[in-house]
Amino acid sequence: MLPELNDLNAFRAALAAAPGPDATAAQGAAERNGQLTKPPGALGRLEDLAIWYAGWRGDARPQIAAPQVIVFAGNHGVTAQGVSAFPSEVTVQMVMNFEHGGAAINQLARAAGATMNVHALDLDNPTADFTQAPAMTEAELLDALRTGWQAVDPQADLLVVGEMGIGNTTPAAAIACALFGGDAADWTGRGTGVDDAGLSNKTRVVAEGVALHKSEDGLEILRCLGGREIAAMAGAIAAARILRIPVILDGFICTAAAACLWRLSDTALDHAVAGHQSAEAAHGAVLAKLGKEPLLSLGLRLGEGSGGALAINILKSAVACHSGMATFAEAGVSDG
Amino acid sequence: MLPELNDLNAFRAALAAAPGPDATAAQGAAERNGQLTKPPGALGRLEDLAIWYAGWRGDARPQIAAPQVIVFAGNHGVTAQGVSAFPSEVTVQMVMNFEHGGAAINQLARAAGATMNVHALDLDNPTADFTQAPAMTEAELLDALRTGWQAVDPQADLLVVGEMGIGNTTPAAAIACALFGGDAADWTGRGTGVDDAGLSNKTRVVAEGVALHKSEDGLEILRCLGGREIAAMAGAIAAARILRIPVILDGFICTAAAACLWRLSDTALDHAVAGHQSAEAAHGAVLAKLGKEPLLSLGLRLGEGSGGALAINILKSAVACHSGMATFAEAGVSDG
Repeated sequence: MLPELNDLNAFRAALAAAPGPDATAAQGAAERNGQLTKPPGALGRLEDLAIWYAGWRGDARPQIAAPQVIVFAGNHGVTAQGVSAFPSEVTVQMVMNFEHGGAAINQLARAAGATMNVHALDLDNPTADFTQAPAMTEAELLDALRTGWQAVDPQADLLVVGEMGIGNTTPAAAIACALFGGDAADWTGRGTGVDDAGLSNKTRVVAEGVALHKSEDGLEILRCLGGREIAAMAGAIAAARILRIPVILDGFICTAAAACLWRLSDTALDHAVAGHQSAEAAHGAVLAKLGKEPLLSLGLRLGEGSGGALAINILKSAVACHSGMATFAEAGVSDG
Repeated sequence: MLPELNDLNAFRAALAAAPGPDATAAQGAAERNGQLTKPPGALGRLEDLAIWYAGWRGDARPQIAAPQVIVFAGNHGVTAQGVSAFPSEVTVQMVMNFEHGGAAINQLARAAGATMNVHALDLDNPTADFTQAPAMTEAELLDALRTGWQAVDPQADLLVVGEMGIGNTTPAAAIACALFGGDAADWTGRGTGVDDAGLSNKTRVVAEGVALHKSEDGLEILRCLGGREIAAMAGAIAAARILRIPVILDGFICTAAAACLWRLSDTALDHAVAGHQSAEAAHGAVLAKLGKEPLLSLGLRLGEGSGGALAINILKSAVACHSGMATFAEAGVSDG
């Protein structure tokens, strides 16, 4: 059960108190893995994934039957700084596209056998331009976290969160820079496709935001430099951590949201794997900071949860092998 | 329609005469791709895969509805040289396991929505030890090629071929060495898990075989150094080329089989993508020779078609996005 989020301290406390994986189930899964009809280690990372999943689900022979994809959408005041190749009205247009089934994430969720939900967060009321003021008030941050928190189906057995928000690689870059240090240029990329002048401008914006809002705290960085859909993703990932629902992280923006949680607790993302490495330049660096090795690297840079959803079938396949294969004894196969 | 394989020349002639992809369909797919509701290129390699698939299927908006996985099994006289960590009787035991649904490939084919067929090739009659004689006679090679050729369902719209054959990383290494040159040690790996002494012995065996059977011809190399399941994979991949059924290559042994075809014609594998990069040491080098970039790299080294089957859902997802997404005009989304 998820506690009520009455204030930001309740969020911090719930994340700090979240249970870890079930060591007995993980151990049982590791023992089963050693008995399956294949040479030891021959399924590579699929074996590790299955054992990890078993631990989080508390079942040495689990199934993945109910994956959930949630897409959060938000608008960003920082687009006033000219950071995106697309106009802000595309956010609501794409939400309609999600609702009508026409976007990439609709196809990918269906191909993965996942349910899909869309939450548009106050699109007519963009966050503040973070070069001028904190992106959100504390109340706005709490609302956005709560939207994500409540969006997770407690019956889901796997979660992917994604986002839509024109301009949102800029807050993601600012979050990464604030969390991990270095220069704004280290974390700023081309997003949906800005040109060289656009990239230079975007880097300036990120540097200004990070300089204006100094903090070491994950929630304060999220509040000052993030956005509603980014905070909602963080809320959903945290809720899944508490509910022991494994998460597949998507790309740069999703991973920036997750990194704010990791700053709050270094076990906050133990239930998460990296679905893919985005073509957005800094994503690999953020994953490396989090110690996450991506499952896929196919040059995606779309967001929406697309890379995470694409990886669902990898995890399903891993668990299907683990739970469906015969043991050497069952199959009468000599084990070398 | 596939021609009859009355002799090896018929095989060569059919492969040489195989039609290429449909340029009009590929062009139509590329145009459609540019209109879909995403920033240009944001689906990365999924976009290239969908356009490639559309060309081979002759349909600018294709579906993948009937993937086929075929596993071929064979036994190898070269196991007399002590090249495997497992005894040869495991081949037939694993064929039983495939037939009873207990192997990894059964779970992976099901997770990919693929049919699966198993062909055991004369398991009681291993090929000759290639350190002593050619592995197969011309008649034996032709029989094995024909088994693969006839195993492909002409109604399939995607093909994965896999193998089971205790000892068969040794012939695969010998084939790679014969085709691409260099030292036996460059192409010889640990297979299912031989130790250092075993690896050293295996390298000697590969070197002896390659020295004994000098040829530049793909079919002669396959005959002298290969095995029945390896030839059957080559036959199936060639049949798919002629039928314009796209293929996802599996690991080292499957790729060695495919490389024999590539030696016969440098367009023989244009209908094929590399499903994954195996942990078997030389697989990456063979893929590089063939100009194939693997879709996945998850440390698998099982064979059976496992890595190819795992990649089916990637290709299905690519095609689902391509054919299922709305265009900017359909969705009323501003295209930047």
